[in-house]
Amino acid sequence: MGEGGFWKRRMEANRTAAIPALLKLLEQHGRIENFRIAKSRLTTERSEWYTRDSDTFKWIEACALALESDEDSHLRALMDRVVDWVIDAQYEDGYLNTYFSGARLPERFTKLRSDHELYSAGHLFQAAVAHHRVTGSDKLLSCAVRFADLICETVGPGKLEEADGHPEVELALVELYRETGTKSYLDLAGFLLDVQGFKEKTFLEGHAVKAMYLAEGGADYYSETGDEATWQALQRLWKDLSTNKVYLTGGIGSRYHTEAIGLPYELPNERAYAETCAAAANGFWAFRMLGITGESAYTDMLERAFYNGFLSCISLRGTDYFYCNPLANFSEYKRVDFFTVCCCPTNVVRTLAAIPGYIYGESDDGLWVHLYEDSRVDWRLRDGTPVSLEQRTGYPWDGQVRLSVSLPQARQFTLYLRIPGWCRSASVRVNGEAVAAEPGRYLPIRRIWSQSDIVEPDFAMPVEVIEADRRISDSHGRVALQRGPLVYCLESTDNPGVNLRDAALGDPESLSAKWQAELLGGMVAIHGEGVEIKQGENAPMYRPVGTAALEASDFELTAIPYYAWANRGISDMTVWLQRKP
Amino acid sequence: MGEGGFWKRRMEANRTAAIPALLKLLEQHGRIENFRIAKSRLTTERSEWYTRDSDTFKWIEACALALESDEDSHLRALMDRVVDWVIDAQYEDGYLNTYFSGARLPERFTKLRSDHELYSAGHLFQAAVAHHRVTGSDKLLSCAVRFADLICETVGPGKLEEADGHPEVELALVELYRETGTKSYLDLAGFLLDVQGFKEKTFLEGHAVKAMYLAEGGADYYSETGDEATWQALQRLWKDLSTNKVYLTGGIGSRYHTEAIGLPYELPNERAYAETCAAAANGFWAFRMLGITGESAYTDMLERAFYNGFLSCISLRGTDYFYCNPLANFSEYKRVDFFTVCCCPTNVVRTLAAIPGYIYGESDDGLWVHLYEDSRVDWRLRDGTPVSLEQRTGYPWDGQVRLSVSLPQARQFTLYLRIPGWCRSASVRVNGEAVAAEPGRYLPIRRIWSQSDIVEPDFAMPVEVIEADRRISDSHGRVALQRGPLVYCLESTDNPGVNLRDAALGDPESLSAKWQAELLGGMVAIHGEGVEIKQGENAPMYRPVGTAALEASDFELTAIPYYAWANRGISDMTVWLQRKP
Repeated sequence: MGEGGFWKRRMEANRTAAIPALLKLLEQHGRIENFRIAKSRLTTERSEWYTRDSDTFKWIEACALALESDEDSHLRALMDRVVDWVIDAQYEDGYLNTYFSGARLPERFTKLRSDHELYSAGHLFQAAVAHHRVTGSDKLLSCAVRFADLICETVGPGKLEEADGHPEVELALVELYRETGTKSYLDLAGFLLDVQGFKEKTFLEGHAVKAMYLAEGGADYYSETGDEATWQALQRLWKDLSTNKVYLTGGIGSRYHTEAIGLPYELPNERAYAETCAAAANGFWAFRMLGITGESAYTDMLERAFYNGFLSCISLRGTDYFYCNPLANFSEYKRVDFFTVCCCPTNVVRTLAAIPGYIYGESDDGLWVHLYEDSRVDWRLRDGTPVSLEQRTGYPWDGQVRLSVSLPQARQFTLYLRIPGWCRSASVRVNGEAVAAEPGRYLPIRRIWSQSDIVEPDFAMPVEVIEADRRISDSHGRVALQRGPLVYCLESTDNPGVNLRDAALGDPESLSAKWQAELLGGMVAIHGEGVEIKQGENAPMYRPVGTAALEASDFELTAIPYYAWANRGISDMTVWLQRKP
Repeated sequence: MGEGGFWKRRMEANRTAAIPALLKLLEQHGRIENFRIAKSRLTTERSEWYTRDSDTFKWIEACALALESDEDSHLRALMDRVVDWVIDAQYEDGYLNTYFSGARLPERFTKLRSDHELYSAGHLFQAAVAHHRVTGSDKLLSCAVRFADLICETVGPGKLEEADGHPEVELALVELYRETGTKSYLDLAGFLLDVQGFKEKTFLEGHAVKAMYLAEGGADYYSETGDEATWQALQRLWKDLSTNKVYLTGGIGSRYHTEAIGLPYELPNERAYAETCAAAANGFWAFRMLGITGESAYTDMLERAFYNGFLSCISLRGTDYFYCNPLANFSEYKRVDFFTVCCCPTNVVRTLAAIPGYIYGESDDGLWVHLYEDSRVDWRLRDGTPVSLEQRTGYPWDGQVRLSVSLPQARQFTLYLRIPGWCRSASVRVNGEAVAAEPGRYLPIRRIWSQSDIVEPDFAMPVEVIEADRRISDSHGRVALQRGPLVYCLESTDNPGVNLRDAALGDPESLSAKWQAELLGGMVAIHGEGVEIKQGENAPMYRPVGTAALEASDFELTAIPYYAWANRGISDMTVWLQRKP
């Protein structure tokens, strides 16, 4: 990766600030000490939750992925030390879960529904795969393999025929299979999917993160097996997600009650639960569906989630987190540095570190450009030919990209260029010559590429006034602002004296976008006409239409990207605006 | 009470069907057996919840109140038997709670926050007061007094300084004080209100029924003491309720999560929790505020709650209940005959039996007509003069009332006639002569009344198209239908083939009301132009305004009173309709 891109800045803060800070907090909260206690075969305190090992595993995965982009000897030393502690805590038979150590040893594998041993194991496997790919060392991978082998001996047909209460191990088993070639891991993933009736599922329900992780496991299993019933289920679930269960921000899971996905169209804005992990998982699942189909709609969803409902979870300085990501706020809500159930922060750091892996893809016939980011990568075609790709762009602040393709010798292949679905007018030039481009699809450019070919997509990026499906009650009759992939919001900080509950959009023609270098480290803000619509103090809450006097007063509206809200102290915020009556 | 009124029919079903059926279910679920076990000083099973005695107490209260309107020897025999079982279970020191019997005896008064002993006691006190007033027997009242005295010895300043986790005993202590004159009950109520910081409260929050019952306790305490700080709190809380926390139906408490009142304007329709007990409590509190102030706004709220969000909870046949009362449904939701936590059914039967007590009121200078109902009552002025009041009306189906006032000798007093707030045009004639009437107020008619004076209020009752405060996201941009005090809804049964999520109101001028004798036992339905607005199958969930093709098709809209929905099998339903774009 080169310098200066949108995500690069976040990755820098992630590597230098968030990851080290999180290790300190994990240590303070006993997460690391647990491994040392388990090494001594003593009983750990049940002072915190039994999924706690997973936080450490996700932290290791974040380190490994961060080191893949940028060498950092300090970080590498931290990672090595934690990896050693983890490995030391493993039992002789391969078991590794610090909660079930000491006196709790006999309870192993007896409470899968509630105590999440396999969930935790899954995160170990993911960490081990990342660690192996990046460092080349197989010490954590061996540890994971020993545990995976024990799980395969214990769980499966004719053995313990039960899945973990929290899916995750399914996708991790497929990753471990890919890394090791051990087919029993893939088979166990399939078995666990069957135990959970995945092939029969028709809609998303229940705990949002569980539902999304299960779908990811299904997608990984399908991509390795081509199992048709699994694919049918994946398509049903995706349709359900993308037509009635996702927020404009890519957030998923509207209910505080059991952290659940709601009924169709149940998407309250102020009371959105929209857990950070679920928005991240939306991106994870979308990326798997993209890998299966090559369809741009999935990349659109990934982009929606990553730039908005996922990115909102972390402060601009990079060490404060949201667990929930509401689309409106009129309370004292703010980010904090840690949660006792710390799934979100550790998901954030591993996901930010993984961003480079989402930008490009490959297929037998060529390369795919999924995301636009000022960056550079040295890569290879599947036949081994080295290719360098360099993007120069201000994306997502503007839609012009200059993509340089460089090969040591000329080679024919297809470059698949994503034309984002949010874009209504796109042009692409290849070495200056225009190529027709259709938004919402990948544009295949098949040619003989050579040294210094230049591809220049240009995505028109006006301010768009967005409406929702009319069946979403909470956004019905309202509009939101979006520019490029970024959803915008009004924050009271920029709109002082306006009650944002009463804020309506004035003339849409008045809207303009402006780069403001001094605003929150530099970003494009939207300005235009707002109208504050107040009803009289004594107007009844319910009344015959038109009988309450409304008082409209104009104000200069300023909107900032949704992800950047709550970085300047406590504030009111809203994504959806009223329409002028 | 005379024959034929709207509520009278429900009271008949209540007395003859619901109350006897509920006793059988209470027996089946061990609620009655518990008293027999406790009598033997054995430990009851913790098979059900520790508030279970309260179900039996509320059932006794319902019996007593039902017998006040209509003698029923069968019901009286049932009641007498249950009352005896209750009394027999009382400990020598006055204690009475079947859960804390036998081995659990030492746990008495140690878990007030969670185990609701005082809540349960409160319902005993209310039952005892009703039983005493109706039967003249003091046996249950004595039992209540003995327990109340024990509580006063145990709880209070310098003793156990703690309130029950579920308010109720506060209002019941004031009732018991009124019945017995024992001031320590009133003082304890005041102490418990203070322990809960009632005077400092500025808004309603937390568990809806708890919040409402506490407010009722506050109102009762204020009405006996005139404590100014209590009154200030009551006014703050009422304003909060009536400006941002109540549904169009009078339902309260929008959240499934902890059965709580939501944030301001957090009033989802499909996902409304709107517990039956909370809607009933809304009426209870409103009636107390009316008693304090004589202001019609409170009666308007009582009427809104009782005719809509409360009455919806019970089936027309009278033996099936809702716990939650959503304002839209697209699921298999239906009423059932019992709940393990059976607070709602027992609240329903005692409230239906209590309806006659809400119709009239009195003050030093005369009588108050709060509600309109085809009925007859023989009463007395405060100076002892007997007065008969007879209402002949089809209310709530039409707004014409013929009220006959009869006294054996002429007497001057004021008849306060409520002109409902929902009414936009009212006329009143006294013996044929027009009197000016202002909606939303009580019209005082001061004159010398004599034999057979006739008062004829006439409330225009067109179909009203209602809008909500624009800050309620879930109803924003939508309309509802109301006629008189009744909120209407569209049910799929009457609107076959129409997806009610897509239903909009057509021309408001097309709306008409029609009495339909064959419909659900006879009711006024609303007919008019509906428009079903469908978006194309491939329209994105979020899109630039106006870019999704909408297809509008007209349909003949039929709306029925909200309270009557779900009486013809599983159905979709919505109170709020889209507006035609």
